[in-house]
Amino acid sequence: MERIHTVEVSAHIGERVRIAGWLHSLRRLGGISFLVIRDGWGIVQVVAETEVELGPLQDGASGVESIVAVEGVVVSEAQAPGGIELHEPRIEVMVPVTEVPPVSLNKRKISASLGTLLDHAVVTNRHLARRAVLRLAAGAMAGFRSTLSDRGFSEIQTPKIVAAATESGANVFKLDYFGRPAFLAQSPQFYKQNMVGVFERVFEVGPVFRAEPHDTTRHINEYVSLDAEFGFIENHFTVMALLRDVIAGILTGFHEQYAAELEILRVRMPEVPEKIPHIFFPEAQELIFKRFKTDVRGEPDLSPQDERWLGEWAQQEFGSDFLFVTGYPMRKRPFYTHPDPEHPEYSNSFDLLFRGTELVTGGQRLHLYSDYIEALERAHLPIEPFEAYLEAFKYGMPPHGGFAIGLERLLMQLTGMSNVRLTTTFPRDLTRLTP
Amino acid sequence: MERIHTVEVSAHIGERVRIAGWLHSLRRLGGISFLVIRDGWGIVQVVAETEVELGPLQDGASGVESIVAVEGVVVSEAQAPGGIELHEPRIEVMVPVTEVPPVSLNKRKISASLGTLLDHAVVTNRHLARRAVLRLAAGAMAGFRSTLSDRGFSEIQTPKIVAAATESGANVFKLDYFGRPAFLAQSPQFYKQNMVGVFERVFEVGPVFRAEPHDTTRHINEYVSLDAEFGFIENHFTVMALLRDVIAGILTGFHEQYAAELEILRVRMPEVPEKIPHIFFPEAQELIFKRFKTDVRGEPDLSPQDERWLGEWAQQEFGSDFLFVTGYPMRKRPFYTHPDPEHPEYSNSFDLLFRGTELVTGGQRLHLYSDYIEALERAHLPIEPFEAYLEAFKYGMPPHGGFAIGLERLLMQLTGMSNVRLTTTFPRDLTRLTP
Repeated sequence: MERIHTVEVSAHIGERVRIAGWLHSLRRLGGISFLVIRDGWGIVQVVAETEVELGPLQDGASGVESIVAVEGVVVSEAQAPGGIELHEPRIEVMVPVTEVPPVSLNKRKISASLGTLLDHAVVTNRHLARRAVLRLAAGAMAGFRSTLSDRGFSEIQTPKIVAAATESGANVFKLDYFGRPAFLAQSPQFYKQNMVGVFERVFEVGPVFRAEPHDTTRHINEYVSLDAEFGFIENHFTVMALLRDVIAGILTGFHEQYAAELEILRVRMPEVPEKIPHIFFPEAQELIFKRFKTDVRGEPDLSPQDERWLGEWAQQEFGSDFLFVTGYPMRKRPFYTHPDPEHPEYSNSFDLLFRGTELVTGGQRLHLYSDYIEALERAHLPIEPFEAYLEAFKYGMPPHGGFAIGLERLLMQLTGMSNVRLTTTFPRDLTRLTP
Repeated sequence: MERIHTVEVSAHIGERVRIAGWLHSLRRLGGISFLVIRDGWGIVQVVAETEVELGPLQDGASGVESIVAVEGVVVSEAQAPGGIELHEPRIEVMVPVTEVPPVSLNKRKISASLGTLLDHAVVTNRHLARRAVLRLAAGAMAGFRSTLSDRGFSEIQTPKIVAAATESGANVFKLDYFGRPAFLAQSPQFYKQNMVGVFERVFEVGPVFRAEPHDTTRHINEYVSLDAEFGFIENHFTVMALLRDVIAGILTGFHEQYAAELEILRVRMPEVPEKIPHIFFPEAQELIFKRFKTDVRGEPDLSPQDERWLGEWAQQEFGSDFLFVTGYPMRKRPFYTHPDPEHPEYSNSFDLLFRGTELVTGGQRLHLYSDYIEALERAHLPIEPFEAYLEAFKYGMPPHGGFAIGLERLLMQLTGMSNVRLTTTFPRDLTRLTP
């Protein structure tokens, strides 16, 4: 009999079917055995009226996580998970497991310290809640790509071993490249800009590496960056409009294809307004002064508290979980940032706040070669390491801009998790390099 | 007037439209000016009956690669590229370029040495032929993902900074991870296997790093790997059937969405048979002996010449560009390879040959913890560095297998290019680290 997946079982009520997967749990109650089988997609309960024989399993072993195949009759049963059960089962143990997993995988919540959970990630990633987060990661990547593909964007893959640090010389991993010094890319920034010269509209999904020696709940040292960049924009507002559509596309994809995962994680899903409200940086500081009686005017950046206040205001004023803050001071933005032509001390850049925390950064970039030379000089950076990348700007680049979304942080903020490591498949941090 | 893309122009015959892009070429013939405008998707010819004024461009500058916007009337004209032209143009130079590009971008072929072409990749990637290859790369990734998503596969992203070398201790880039030694992942092999325990069916598109000191036309040191891995397989033939569908899916995607690129590159597209023919390794050697009078029987691997002979045979015998060779000797395959239960000196692995050259490698992996311990001992490898990954096998793993396709090599072989660097956006090799 051909195996079907657990999520297909409910379409076969009254029929005998075969499923296979992991023995998620086994309880024996008054001579009746309840088995739950987990496969790559869902779970199904199996009820045996007699003691089940688990052949190669040792007596007394719980046997959870054993690989099993079960044939049985599909019965509708309101009390069972998913409303169905298998009865009159024939059970075959394909790979017996007798050792008890380091962390219990069949409780609703994982009861283990963060360290234990991550040390055993190759096993704990099987837990239904953790698996749901990682499945949402797949959904976010798919939503990002499809929203952009629909708008004429081309996918690119750019090198991760690079000769020059992108963002700054600090916080970059160094490696030995056949006897020459090299670095791991902190972002695909220059490459995606260069590729605007080729395809006009590009995106990349790939790893970025930050050697930041920070041990916080929001930092990991390798993460997945969802990068977009495109040409012929008016200014940063063109970029903000695209970002709005991308976030909406990701969330729509979640609703349409990941309802089970949202349910398991009890995600409080936001609405994305047709037009996300925005506020100009100095006006945001003025608002904080007037409304929250704290004078942050003249500060070059917003503090986490400032962001929370602004999030609160956006919620009360517009009923929006999202708020764009535009025009951060040039001195706090990277050298490739385009200034605001009318207020050159401010930039054509933005942060997107979600529920009072920064979620995405983006903006318009410089597009004239001469502007880059000036900007590097102003930033006291040498031209030489950037020369190969700047060549693109010598030969015609349109006004352009883009943004980068940190995949794991996006999931952390959407699901309300307390630590970005909980939304990362195999996190890398100051002390963690395995598994 | 709102800008439209060059590929949309033919839908507006008789109307006045606005396009924008790069000044691809400019010829003046007897008082008439012919401009070709290139945007991110195609090209359109513009014909001006009078000398055109290119405002900010210096007198005498060719101005190619300047960013321009053109409004004009769409006219059907059989002689023009794409069968249409813009007449009565109004031309606006948005970003003037007066310097001549290092490599001519508007000839059918790039006339520059490979070194020059790659040194200036940020500009030469704009050439229509090169851009077509890179667009096919995007198409291959999309075809890979959609074929697998349709079959219930989940996308994963796994770390590239790792504590242990995957394939072997040699040829691995080393880096300093906060004072500890670390490596760049040579493949996502262990991670994708681990994630079979979570999602059953997984794929990953991401960079892999090989510190191979080889300077050949087929080697680069960072490439994009299209990895798939899945559980509950019968043996390597289940994997081969999936790979067949993936290759067919990629090629169908090319036909449906990349016809212009195939045309530019004059790709001789293969047919993928419903069932790709296969031959068992020792029988392949026997065949070479009988048919090509060369005795390679007992050799542990196939030489490039052996592969060409087998490709020739597959073409003559089955009319197939593709051939699976199965059952490579265990001693030439990595330690995680599953042996053939009936002939344990041979493996449940395969190579897919395309027109006589290896294109993809894959197979069934070991799935029992005890088998891994034995295999590591037999390979004289220590267990400790692998311990964290092997934990997954302690707690139930089904029979599983997979494959990895090198994106740039796939494109090289499909397009018939002579060097893998020609199908790579920004190649990394022994001497090349920029751009």
